[in-house]
Amino acid sequence: MTIDHKRVAVLSPIAWRTPPRQYGAWETVASNITEGLVSRGWDVTLFATKDSITRARLHAVVDRGYEEDTAIDAKVAEYLHISEVFEHAAEFDLIHSHYDFLALSYTRLVKTPVLTTIHGFSSPGIMPVYQKYRDGYFVSISNSDRAPGLNYLATVYNGIDLLLYPLKIPGGDYLLFLGRIHPDKGVHLAIEVARRSGLPLLIAGIIQDQRYFREQVEPHLDQTIRYIAPVDVAGKNELFASARVLLHLNTIPERFGLVLAEAGAAGVPVIAMDLGSCREVIQDGETGFLVDNVGEAILALRRLPEINPDACRGRVQQLFSVETMVEGYERVYQTVFALEATRQS
Amino acid sequence: MTIDHKRVAVLSPIAWRTPPRQYGAWETVASNITEGLVSRGWDVTLFATKDSITRARLHAVVDRGYEEDTAIDAKVAEYLHISEVFEHAAEFDLIHSHYDFLALSYTRLVKTPVLTTIHGFSSPGIMPVYQKYRDGYFVSISNSDRAPGLNYLATVYNGIDLLLYPLKIPGGDYLLFLGRIHPDKGVHLAIEVARRSGLPLLIAGIIQDQRYFREQVEPHLDQTIRYIAPVDVAGKNELFASARVLLHLNTIPERFGLVLAEAGAAGVPVIAMDLGSCREVIQDGETGFLVDNVGEAILALRRLPEINPDACRGRVQQLFSVETMVEGYERVYQTVFALEATRQS
Repeated sequence: MTIDHKRVAVLSPIAWRTPPRQYGAWETVASNITEGLVSRGWDVTLFATKDSITRARLHAVVDRGYEEDTAIDAKVAEYLHISEVFEHAAEFDLIHSHYDFLALSYTRLVKTPVLTTIHGFSSPGIMPVYQKYRDGYFVSISNSDRAPGLNYLATVYNGIDLLLYPLKIPGGDYLLFLGRIHPDKGVHLAIEVARRSGLPLLIAGIIQDQRYFREQVEPHLDQTIRYIAPVDVAGKNELFASARVLLHLNTIPERFGLVLAEAGAAGVPVIAMDLGSCREVIQDGETGFLVDNVGEAILALRRLPEINPDACRGRVQQLFSVETMVEGYERVYQTVFALEATRQS
Repeated sequence: MTIDHKRVAVLSPIAWRTPPRQYGAWETVASNITEGLVSRGWDVTLFATKDSITRARLHAVVDRGYEEDTAIDAKVAEYLHISEVFEHAAEFDLIHSHYDFLALSYTRLVKTPVLTTIHGFSSPGIMPVYQKYRDGYFVSISNSDRAPGLNYLATVYNGIDLLLYPLKIPGGDYLLFLGRIHPDKGVHLAIEVARRSGLPLLIAGIIQDQRYFREQVEPHLDQTIRYIAPVDVAGKNELFASARVLLHLNTIPERFGLVLAEAGAAGVPVIAMDLGSCREVIQDGETGFLVDNVGEAILALRRLPEINPDACRGRVQQLFSVETMVEGYERVYQTVFALEATRQS
């Protein structure tokens, strides 16, 4: 395929820096796309916080992520940040938005086509915005995370930089939970697996639901079930190095599950609830096990020796690498350009 | 002056219906402007909630005010409502926005000129938005409520429909507080005046700060100091009818003070703190008294017989009527059209 290296604006969220220091899946993906496009010769401008790090041109009007600096008024920052890219729309051939539903409300005011990657539907309340702008250009991050009626051009799986997640040494002793401490992520189910199997559990992640942590996590902490702070990439690799398995017993459909790909890259098998995208990311019996409940998760622990770490990494390399993702987006961009050319002719 | 009756879009807030059932100063003013323009032959489209009442064309995408229906996601509703007027910008010669700072972020994406009436600066956090769009067209609602550096075309005082507020019968026994129950409005100071003067006090208004009400208002309520629910226009007139004076002992600079005009129309004198716009609305010694503290307010009570109710109403008729306001805006609109014509030539 021949590629016109046109001018692309990537609109990243501003909850966190791009890329984020620790938590921040949307900013992570926006960063990976940006850097991947730059590597492949595209002319990219990243709209993100001023402290963001990129090899693209950085265009920023907000100093820091509003989750990182309480002095920043999130509502004000969002309006300033989003409108900025649209005010510069004429300088780009494409605006690639990662900014939830808010950016859609500006799309009809500019001539530049806007592609929106939907990283998740944060609440049913936002659906009227998607319905109004349903004829826009959309990408889903898994086949399972789609809303009916939207003009999806493709599913492009999130991609990670495999250089950041080297293959671990074989073996490992503890169960690992890595993610937001929130009921959606099933930390309490991971704890139940640990208690019933007698295996140690390490829990790492940002505490997003304080009450859930206080009531359903903290009381169970002891010598074998431990909570450690949120971790950065180096911290994740340390945790992966001696982990037996990643437990991802989500209680609602997963949208993509970036941590599943990260664990896979490191050769850590995953036991995941069979909800949402998990079955797209994990190959059951090959890179981990899909389960329907805690009992099945405990049974799956016995089968972990069947999993080959190289197979885990291989699947991520093939399907969930930055390169694969960027190639996927390049195809979508070409589709957009072709559709726009048809519209104008 | 000759007037081209061009097509105007009035963008009202959607916290409440336009006009509001009870509280809602911004929606009240937007309604008064809309209806006044219609009376004078303008082609007006009102962008407001679907349940709004107007003689203009109503364009609505949000069912009800988000303060009146908790099922409505305010953030979603704001984006849908504001973007709607800008998506229809080409159908209008002027967009007259009453929507705080949010609408500014769309103004540079359309060719139609946008005039913003600044009904107040809700927090220092929003000032960066005004600074970015400072070269827009702005109207202040009092000379005192201006931010430096903005391109103000005029001050246009808020106007009320005097037919709604008939002149009361002379006399009256109680002190009246009418407004939001919030420290900014000095309800506690009105209570102090009542206690020290021994006069009864009626307090009516929406409880915006529950803690303030609980701690600084409720403990003082008894037979002579009474709190009654928020009131509509009929309720206000009932309260005005037997009021001796309106106490408006605001603790921060008033932006305009619509209730001061309403009281004046009814012939109720006002004792107001000399902060912000109060000195523009109240003529000291003629329609009420400007004071600096509670002691002065108590002294001013003795001078109430000096105030002539007809003078109160006369001042409102002259300066704060819908007719005066609409004529003021017509002059501003003509200025905008003239400036736009110059820009394009």
